[in-house]
Amino acid sequence: MPLRLDTSSPDFAARFTAFLGTKREVSQDVADAVAGIIADVRARGDAALIDLSRRFDRVDLGALGIRVSEAEIDAAVAAADPATVQALAFAHGRIRAHHERQLPASGRYVDAAGVELGHRWTPVDAVGLYVPGGTAAYPSSVLMNAVPAKVAGVGRLAMVVPAPDGVLNPLVLAAARLAGVDEVYRVGGAQAVAALAYGTQTIAPVAKIVGPGNAYVAAAKRHVFGTVGIDMVAGPSEVLVIADGAQNPDWIAADLLAQAEHDTAAQSILMTDDAALADAVAEAVERQLALLPRRDIAGASWAEFGAIITLASLEEAPALSDRIAPEHLEIMTADAEALVARIRHAGAIFIGAHTPEAIGDYVGGSNHVLPTARSARFSSGLNVLDFMKRTTLLKCGPEQLRALGPAAIALGEAEGLGAHARSVAIRLNL
Amino acid sequence: MPLRLDTSSPDFAARFTAFLGTKREVSQDVADAVAGIIADVRARGDAALIDLSRRFDRVDLGALGIRVSEAEIDAAVAAADPATVQALAFAHGRIRAHHERQLPASGRYVDAAGVELGHRWTPVDAVGLYVPGGTAAYPSSVLMNAVPAKVAGVGRLAMVVPAPDGVLNPLVLAAARLAGVDEVYRVGGAQAVAALAYGTQTIAPVAKIVGPGNAYVAAAKRHVFGTVGIDMVAGPSEVLVIADGAQNPDWIAADLLAQAEHDTAAQSILMTDDAALADAVAEAVERQLALLPRRDIAGASWAEFGAIITLASLEEAPALSDRIAPEHLEIMTADAEALVARIRHAGAIFIGAHTPEAIGDYVGGSNHVLPTARSARFSSGLNVLDFMKRTTLLKCGPEQLRALGPAAIALGEAEGLGAHARSVAIRLNL
Repeated sequence: MPLRLDTSSPDFAARFTAFLGTKREVSQDVADAVAGIIADVRARGDAALIDLSRRFDRVDLGALGIRVSEAEIDAAVAAADPATVQALAFAHGRIRAHHERQLPASGRYVDAAGVELGHRWTPVDAVGLYVPGGTAAYPSSVLMNAVPAKVAGVGRLAMVVPAPDGVLNPLVLAAARLAGVDEVYRVGGAQAVAALAYGTQTIAPVAKIVGPGNAYVAAAKRHVFGTVGIDMVAGPSEVLVIADGAQNPDWIAADLLAQAEHDTAAQSILMTDDAALADAVAEAVERQLALLPRRDIAGASWAEFGAIITLASLEEAPALSDRIAPEHLEIMTADAEALVARIRHAGAIFIGAHTPEAIGDYVGGSNHVLPTARSARFSSGLNVLDFMKRTTLLKCGPEQLRALGPAAIALGEAEGLGAHARSVAIRLNL
Repeated sequence: MPLRLDTSSPDFAARFTAFLGTKREVSQDVADAVAGIIADVRARGDAALIDLSRRFDRVDLGALGIRVSEAEIDAAVAAADPATVQALAFAHGRIRAHHERQLPASGRYVDAAGVELGHRWTPVDAVGLYVPGGTAAYPSSVLMNAVPAKVAGVGRLAMVVPAPDGVLNPLVLAAARLAGVDEVYRVGGAQAVAALAYGTQTIAPVAKIVGPGNAYVAAAKRHVFGTVGIDMVAGPSEVLVIADGAQNPDWIAADLLAQAEHDTAAQSILMTDDAALADAVAEAVERQLALLPRRDIAGASWAEFGAIITLASLEEAPALSDRIAPEHLEIMTADAEALVARIRHAGAIFIGAHTPEAIGDYVGGSNHVLPTARSARFSSGLNVLDFMKRTTLLKCGPEQLRALGPAAIALGEAEGLGAHARSVAIRLNL
């Protein structure tokens, strides 16, 4: 049974706080194993990748090759279901068009003192994209990670994906081809992250690694952080639906279950000011669950982490929603925009009853890699800026140096940094 | 003696690669100690802060109070040297004016399919700023971290700074006052980071923690990453000066030493196409070293990590510079702008002979918190965006859902996510 809370209950504040503190992640302590794997890849390169892939993925990369050939990708694309490939291409076009609008502007200006200041955005040279294998191999995820990198201008995008028992998902390869991935390697786990960070004979090192993965992949990304950049370490996914009494309970139930089917640790929450709707949704969830292929996963997630919160008024919703800082927020109310305007912390907001989250997951155009586990309080969804960096520019002439120099000298001396002060003074003959 | 390299030497490529691989950081393994401190603060709150500060900083926070009062800050500002406070205010004004130009625009648009897409930038609610104590207590660093947070609109900026033997640097407090820091606590180390991340009776938790610190602080920031956001973990600082033969060797030597005086692990590098200038700079460094208050630190840094690289031509400079990806890059050549245009990886570029890095450290207006240790390949200097986050907005009506829905259904089914497909189909009566 999902949790039921009501803001009118005297113990609501305490129970809501406890709800926010619920741990959904099983934290596996794999850091030691990962450190060993990384050291092995650094020491032995390709030979380590071959040994580890034989052990973990039951595949002989010595025979198959670490790199997936263009011919293999051609064959996978040719063998994939044409209608699905067409849907992927439609999604790719929309995602690309949206992300192209995110390209930042560089700029320079001269201030009142005559000092020239500016900044310049440039792409990261080489990026590694981790793609999980097996059941969690999602072609849509390849698009969502690869497109912003390519739009940013990343010259070399290298994808790694494990091939358990030698098998690769053809749609994942088709998505890589569509998105312009430059190199594909059939290797996964911490060993793939190590190869991307440090390089092997076959895989040249990259400057940044993105993409989701299991506990080993996450620990490996943390380990190599600093040597390379990494994206956020994603936790289990969540959705919050805010709805008024006029909404269709079946639609809401379908959206809660779409979230719950991801993972038993996923979380689906409904907030409504209508107790009858709350009951109707609870009933609809149970009814729809029976129809789902992944009902075991969705049912476990809903029973353990699902929640229905009844509000005295929708006025209470923005503050409570901001404390949850949901990855996905659906607003299905008469005046949805008024609520949107009052939300401050959310990864993505889906506005109105005709915008189910699944549209954003696939074809809306915006990115589905979003901050989980309350991290929307301090971080953003994946976007083009994640694949670029900013160089500051500063330019003084003799006159500006005379104007600014004395304050720099005073501060250098106050901080006990005499050589800082001297590097200015020597130019002013002071 | 600094390293001397010449691109004309047959072994240059190998020696330059070895130079790039030089480790400058002493990696202290303090993770276990830090985990214990964090657990203690989570369990005992203020009582742990008081015990740990007695032990590490020889200060009784039970008597003095954990929070620094407004009256204490008033007194510190009144007691500080007025000329230095004036220089700080000058720096603050310039830094603020520059960072105000970094505020990003939110926006929405309707695409050809009638889908409304957009994004909204909002500030992080509460930010913690770590400021080191003792000799590394730099008021300029307080400005550089606090100003972008306040410009971003951070409502609550809480500063922590250790008070060894009860002593706080008055200029650090003056800078905090100028920059609009909301709360100041006299606590440092891993315990301060834990307090900011998890909260205690006195210190409310924040959503993001920024600012430099020692190995314990860095390990603590890594530990709490995910619970809160963190900025980059800074390594030792470096400068690369690219100069032609027409430059003043004394100015260049002064700039190399300004970098070297920071830390024995700092690094100063000169690249020039003029062998005579290389020799003159080497000689000038030795001569100027004798005049410096911090000659022991600067001398050790220069001897161990300094380098002079002689080029056959300045044409070689951009590619070599990009491999170093320097935190600070000074370009002192006849046509500096032509070189600037060819650089891709650098934290900040200081253009022309009249822009010593120290100007940027204090009063240029741009930020001096920049990516170190080759991380300019994938990351950027501190800026207003580091204190904001982006929420994606997506809005479809019935017509857009009909146009986009079938592709979303196809992809949901292809990925084995039946409930995703169903959440769209149920709205289309499919």
